[in-house]
Amino acid sequence: MTRKVDPGNYFEDFAVGQELRHATPRTVTEGDVALYQGLFGSRFALQSAATMARGAGFERAPVDDLLVFHLVFGRTVPDVSLNAIANLGYAQGRFGATVYPGDTLQAASTVTGLRETSNGKTGIVYVRTTGTNQRGETVLAYDRWVLVPKRDAGAAPPEPLVPELADAVPAGELRASWTPGDGYDLVHAGSPHLWEDYAPGERIDHVDGITIEESEHMTACRLFQNTARVHFNQHVEKDRRFGRRIIYGGYLISLARALSFNGLQNAQTVSAINGGRHTNPTFAGDTIYAWSEVLERIPLPGNDRLGALRLRTVATKDRAAADYPYKGEDGTYDPSVVLDFDYTVLMPRRGTVGG
Amino acid sequence: MTRKVDPGNYFEDFAVGQELRHATPRTVTEGDVALYQGLFGSRFALQSAATMARGAGFERAPVDDLLVFHLVFGRTVPDVSLNAIANLGYAQGRFGATVYPGDTLQAASTVTGLRETSNGKTGIVYVRTTGTNQRGETVLAYDRWVLVPKRDAGAAPPEPLVPELADAVPAGELRASWTPGDGYDLVHAGSPHLWEDYAPGERIDHVDGITIEESEHMTACRLFQNTARVHFNQHVEKDRRFGRRIIYGGYLISLARALSFNGLQNAQTVSAINGGRHTNPTFAGDTIYAWSEVLERIPLPGNDRLGALRLRTVATKDRAAADYPYKGEDGTYDPSVVLDFDYTVLMPRRGTVGG
Amino acid sequence: MTRKVDPGNYFEDFAVGQELRHATPRTVTEGDVALYQGLFGSRFALQSAATMARGAGFERAPVDDLLVFHLVFGRTVPDVSLNAIANLGYAQGRFGATVYPGDTLQAASTVTGLRETSNGKTGIVYVRTTGTNQRGETVLAYDRWVLVPKRDAGAAPPEPLVPELADAVPAGELRASWTPGDGYDLVHAGSPHLWEDYAPGERIDHVDGITIEESEHMTACRLFQNTARVHFNQHVEKDRRFGRRIIYGGYLISLARALSFNGLQNAQTVSAINGGRHTNPTFAGDTIYAWSEVLERIPLPGNDRLGALRLRTVATKDRAAADYPYKGEDGTYDPSVVLDFDYTVLMPRRGTVGG
Repeated sequence: MTRKVDPGNYFEDFAVGQELRHATPRTVTEGDVALYQGLFGSRFALQSAATMARGAGFERAPVDDLLVFHLVFGRTVPDVSLNAIANLGYAQGRFGATVYPGDTLQAASTVTGLRETSNGKTGIVYVRTTGTNQRGETVLAYDRWVLVPKRDAGAAPPEPLVPELADAVPAGELRASWTPGDGYDLVHAGSPHLWEDYAPGERIDHVDGITIEESEHMTACRLFQNTARVHFNQHVEKDRRFGRRIIYGGYLISLARALSFNGLQNAQTVSAINGGRHTNPTFAGDTIYAWSEVLERIPLPGNDRLGALRLRTVATKDRAAADYPYKGEDGTYDPSVVLDFDYTVLMPRRGTVGG
Repeated sequence: MTRKVDPGNYFEDFAVGQELRHATPRTVTEGDVALYQGLFGSRFALQSAATMARGAGFERAPVDDLLVFHLVFGRTVPDVSLNAIANLGYAQGRFGATVYPGDTLQAASTVTGLRETSNGKTGIVYVRTTGTNQRGETVLAYDRWVLVPKRDAGAAPPEPLVPELADAVPAGELRASWTPGDGYDLVHAGSPHLWEDYAPGERIDHVDGITIEESEHMTACRLFQNTARVHFNQHVEKDRRFGRRIIYGGYLISLARALSFNGLQNAQTVSAINGGRHTNPTFAGDTIYAWSEVLERIPLPGNDRLGALRLRTVATKDRAAADYPYKGEDGTYDPSVVLDFDYTVLMPRRGTVGG
Repeated sequence: MTRKVDPGNYFEDFAVGQELRHATPRTVTEGDVALYQGLFGSRFALQSAATMARGAGFERAPVDDLLVFHLVFGRTVPDVSLNAIANLGYAQGRFGATVYPGDTLQAASTVTGLRETSNGKTGIVYVRTTGTNQRGETVLAYDRWVLVPKRDAGAAPPEPLVPELADAVPAGELRASWTPGDGYDLVHAGSPHLWEDYAPGERIDHVDGITIEESEHMTACRLFQNTARVHFNQHVEKDRRFGRRIIYGGYLISLARALSFNGLQNAQTVSAINGGRHTNPTFAGDTIYAWSEVLERIPLPGNDRLGALRLRTVATKDRAAADYPYKGEDGTYDPSVVLDFDYTVLMPRRGTVGG
């Protein structure tokens, strides 16, 4: 009898070039959108209101980009990170076709790199994941690397290969998924500040804080079908390093994005994920704050209606972000910092919108 | 650079006659309806079943009136009550066009009154808020007044103006949004008791109690996009007066309404909010009970199928409602009372329905 | 004035042959499906993806069978088990017409047996419940028996009658609700193991554990409109036997089913509930594990595409299931066992599917 219970993959199970088609495709519905709303509380107008969305050229309210990210990510967990010790980083994430309720997402990954760590017990696995819809269009592709234990510490290490990863998705590859026009109401969007109003180097304290609870966190992970064990099992975690269930890193990304509305109201869509680090573990009971820095203001080639902003959004726990906590002089992250997220958003340019 | 983060309004920022168009319109979906169901557990048949709803003249199951209230209210928070110390009262609330999944709600408010309080540090702001759908039809309009701090205690007080507010929405202004007929099944509705069976002065103990948890309360507020800070941030609240996050007053209204099914099974829709007070703060861990008193039995002019009942529903915490806790002899509320809600519901009249 | 608040039924209120039409029909929506997903985290592909479902002959993704069970069950609580001391067992549960979002479910029960218990204070009530859709088609019918207190311990006992209940739903009565074919992708289903690969006597440890929280449990009960008081009221329960709110037994069934994906990936639908016992109470904070045993491999008459597996799935609390905890030598359940569930699932047969 073959083994029917999936034990997840260990470092030795990966090979460069390996293709992983992930299980459990997922039809996104208005129900998922509502629950995501209840869990994170976003207020960006294009996802909130069909009227605003149609005024910007969408068929209807699009599914939040980060919900798409979590759903694609969730598919990959059983094959890539079920046994992972840590989710080390993201790069080259690019959103493609708009996702609407009713679309069915599936995902596949290619192993793009492997490197055993110096202690010989673990290794880093690099994958590039592509999420597609029911028409085979790419909705999101991104690189991720994770720290995975070896099954057998004595196993010979693979030839090390670390893929080259760009610092950021170039402007020419950003998809302009919408078109601000007269139907874009600035009062309804929540702010008159448009692309030209944000300057590189500018920092914004998003002010508010949200305390995390176990129940809502597990509900989010189950919604995403993210089955990583550390999120769910207090019976096991109580005797492990932290004594508690660990919050999914992506949960922090969505909380920080929802908080960032207050200051980035017109940053309606996420176009790219350039990089991201979960710099400290987070637990239920922690209160999350966020601040952002404008890294770059990027014109979109041939597009005079939308501009891109490359942002760093930093999330902290149990520390307000008024003084922009980040790294110490030695370059290490402040212990309050839980997320360092580098991404690109789209915003209307001045003179293109109503309101 | 202008200020991009919304600090909310202070007392000096309001002027009588000022018009506030609120941000973030909101398309209501079946997902919102399901999550609202999971949060409050209502059992009124017209919102629960499309079959019952169509039998009463609706196109499909209508969105719960109180979900409409919360969604309209949620729009107003950033402009009206982000800095509010207390939500003091409601009046003249009248539900209009039925809301169905797919409708997009937006809201605007007019400042109708201002009065500085005697300590000179705060003031009361009166607003009339109108929620409209994507066709511009009013779905709900109501008055609300809130206690708001002054930014600068030394600022000169405005000319005091307190609007005249009716005690109750008159019968002629109640919208008969449905038509009980043969398709209205009394067994499915859950009770044979109709409009004529309720007498002014009658009191009903709704018996059951529901304990509130932080997670579901924050999920509700995020669903409504109600961003008032006191609901979300334990890191700040732990050092403030109550040491805990404060439950949104409207949450109590929905819990009390859901509890009131047991005794008011045919009170299918809320037609008016005549008044409401949040008389004591509520916290996670509190168990909520409710009782109701019939204040008035109101015929609807020219309508022999539906009648209105004006009700007072009182919610208590950690005290069963069997003895109808309310006010002491000195007129002050019993410390267990957290909500005193005066509203008008519609119920079928005898002889009009099947079952 | 008649009594308007439903006190629930006591043992004396039931009579053999009595028909109970239950209140509050319920239209199932995509919102309910999403919230159910967030609460339990199932990964079976036919319910997750419209593409997979259509490839197996469904119109679209069907509603999870156990969500149908909970919704039908929820209707019956006010009439059958509002005052119940314990939910003793299920039998002869058979799923009928597929339920899709948009269908409206209603339920009716017949009292099929009554037996006073030896202490004279309680009695066992047997009911057969039928859930139907808006076309009158049966979606689920099952027997259940509950322990109900007498209102008056001195009341004369009824003539005892215990209905005959089959051990299992026979193969000829199982409805083959889908048709695996080329559109059924085994990689997307999550496993190559099909009906022929499971042998009677085989045991599967589903490995993972999920910790229960109060908030998500109450949300589930409210979604199902299951109003049994012991689930909601900490103010009362703190002074009762367990000092805590009690988890709804059906909640464990859904958790165990979701856990069972890991090992039973192609067991896409539940066709019958042969029996079930809630063997120990469960509380928030408990971590649930599950293991399954294949009881029987049942060919479906005239169907060479689908086969049935009769399974026992056992859920435990705060104890991993690696050693299949069940009963001691004296036949009593291990204290860690909270659910003993006997049911029949459908799985594709070899040679019928793509992938």
